[in-house]
Amino acid sequence: MRNLYFKKDSERGVNGTYNWLVDEVGELGDELRKGTDKEATEKEFADVIAWLVSLANLMEIDLERAALNKYNNKCPKCQQTPCRCPF
Amino acid sequence: MRNLYFKKDSERGVNGTYNWLVDEVGELGDELRKGTDKEATEKEFADVIAWLVSLANLMEIDLERAALNKYNNKCPKCQQTPCRCPF
Repeated sequence: MRNLYFKKDSERGVNGTYNWLVDEVGELGDELRKGTDKEATEKEFADVIAWLVSLANLMEIDLERAALNKYNNKCPKCQQTPCRCPF
Repeated sequence: MRNLYFKKDSERGVNGTYNWLVDEVGELGDELRKGTDKEATEKEFADVIAWLVSLANLMEIDLERAALNKYNNKCPKCQQTPCRCPF
């Protein structure tokens, strides 16, 4: 994703890239509400993850490491697997 | 993520899980606007990816495969690396 888009992402900046992410999350929501086309839904998931990765690249954050640091097979709130938080 | 949250995610359903994702994207935006605390920003990225994975699990979509299918080191629009789309 960095090879593909980092130059453009840098030119667009963090705010612009975040706004694209929000738009894509909206499109994913539209597709989920329709709920008829699994392939289209997959593509919307792909777009959301692509923009999230773009944004993480701009912030010099390793998304996989961030996720594993917080959620390493244990709920960060209740510390249990599976999560047993009371909500 | 499936081990941790699938049962709760199932009970919450697709709409409820999507709404959590939207909230987390908002929190990430707040943290990016503050722009002061890299560790807090990483945690917000982790939350967004966690909810996105939860939602994909509910839809029985493999997020990594979806991303690779659409963005396999080539822009899906212009078919070039790096992307040379005119926008």
